[in-house]
Amino acid sequence: MFSERSVTDRLREKSRIPASSALVLGIGDDCAIYRPRGSADDLLFTTDMCIEGVHFETGTHKPAEIAYVALARSVSDIAAMGGRPRFSLVSVALGEQKPMPALFDALAKYAAEFEAPLAGGDLARSDRMFLDVMVAGSVPRGTALRRAGARPGHEIWVSGALGGSALGLEKKTGKAWRRHVRPQPRIELGEFLRSKLRATACMDLSDGLSLDLERLCVASGCSADIAEPPRFPGATLEQALHGGEDYELLFTVRPGTRVPAQFNRIPLTRIGNIGVGAAGEVRLNGARLPGLGYDHLRR
Amino acid sequence: MFSERSVTDRLREKSRIPASSALVLGIGDDCAIYRPRGSADDLLFTTDMCIEGVHFETGTHKPAEIAYVALARSVSDIAAMGGRPRFSLVSVALGEQKPMPALFDALAKYAAEFEAPLAGGDLARSDRMFLDVMVAGSVPRGTALRRAGARPGHEIWVSGALGGSALGLEKKTGKAWRRHVRPQPRIELGEFLRSKLRATACMDLSDGLSLDLERLCVASGCSADIAEPPRFPGATLEQALHGGEDYELLFTVRPGTRVPAQFNRIPLTRIGNIGVGAAGEVRLNGARLPGLGYDHLRR
Repeated sequence: MFSERSVTDRLREKSRIPASSALVLGIGDDCAIYRPRGSADDLLFTTDMCIEGVHFETGTHKPAEIAYVALARSVSDIAAMGGRPRFSLVSVALGEQKPMPALFDALAKYAAEFEAPLAGGDLARSDRMFLDVMVAGSVPRGTALRRAGARPGHEIWVSGALGGSALGLEKKTGKAWRRHVRPQPRIELGEFLRSKLRATACMDLSDGLSLDLERLCVASGCSADIAEPPRFPGATLEQALHGGEDYELLFTVRPGTRVPAQFNRIPLTRIGNIGVGAAGEVRLNGARLPGLGYDHLRR
Repeated sequence: MFSERSVTDRLREKSRIPASSALVLGIGDDCAIYRPRGSADDLLFTTDMCIEGVHFETGTHKPAEIAYVALARSVSDIAAMGGRPRFSLVSVALGEQKPMPALFDALAKYAAEFEAPLAGGDLARSDRMFLDVMVAGSVPRGTALRRAGARPGHEIWVSGALGGSALGLEKKTGKAWRRHVRPQPRIELGEFLRSKLRATACMDLSDGLSLDLERLCVASGCSADIAEPPRFPGATLEQALHGGEDYELLFTVRPGTRVPAQFNRIPLTRIGNIGVGAAGEVRLNGARLPGLGYDHLRR
């Protein structure tokens, strides 16, 4: 029995990066960070899979929706570090009968809209449809937002309202479904958090607040105390706490930072504080909140 | 019915890269090329999938062999452009019962040996094992070897002996099998071709000489006349011409370039000349040689 964390911990331990490497950050954050010789920018790299039967079903998801979400997941990781997307590589495996033109056209179109034009990839036949999207982004050198910078006393904030994607997956209709198939990566917000608010830590909410906040706290070596987060209309507390794929930003700021009530009409809500408890411990209204979000290996 | 070329042509057409982009080269070569602001180096990016039942079988390939080949395929693309590997991202989907520690440990180990340490990736559950490996490399700015630089009169050369991997897949034993499961990406040779011989075009032989030479000729807008290539001991002419996964380098040089008979004990053999015929036309001993190598979509 493996969990995602056990595997990433093992890989990180085994993947010692030479001191001479231009890799600034390896496994364990939303993106890897690479600093080219002489470059004014640090480059960000992230990759995310979308697998038929795991992340989507061809019966319920249209090709354009599959393409959009596959790209949005990686673009959101760039947003989480305060970066701008620069280009993408897309690997696609699919069967003969699959609607390839619609899928490929949508990949090219949405990649351009996300300012991450397709620069390459790989193609293969497979009865099970499979996509893997790598997006590269950039930030001014040394400024990428990371998970590890939260400290006791820092305030915990989230953008938007949570649980909409989980609700959409349940209802398969309405605004919540649209939320599920058209999540909005928070690129401009990420840049604002990096350059204006100087957020101390940031990540995107891909696997559910409970698990993602636990990860942020583990990376930062501290605990968190939160109240109930803002809910997407109709979403249960359960969905808001543990539902994945909202792609809102979870971030921390130094106490007293003037965070606006909204940014580009996206509400920003303070949900709690970073504490001095055991690393990774999250409490909701004083009670221990287990990280029940989506672990990609433990199902 | 789709061919790999019809899809990549379509994607390239739809993926217009803005003039302001730092992408120097997009879809259609062994790697994409990105030039960071102020950087002394150009960065190279390539990605390759390895899918259970398509590229390997868990019954015949050990986890370490799967990991090795998955990495070697992308590292070979970096070699084809004369670059050095810098880091890698690995996406892995696999089932609960699969030998994960051996696979992940081998990925970390071989990535380090290829000087492409694991910097991140993605994990998912799937009954069908699936890997996608992205390798980033670098070359001094403006020096990457491409497919498009061959011109009539240039000499056509290959490294090593061809058909060994196809023979190995047939025999499942001996030196040919070892060739199949432990191909050697030609990193040092690629650097030599770029910096010393100033090769005019280069690519790696992943899908068979006939198809790969056709691709080089299409990219360069010219034809090729070749004689029989050097064969791996025991390989048929068919295997040497059309068998994939040898990962030797195919390159062109200006006439009169002093190419050594071998480099680091790897034989270098002149097999023909670039001609003025129709773009992509390849002739073997004067007769048309169809591109029968491995097309990943047309099977």
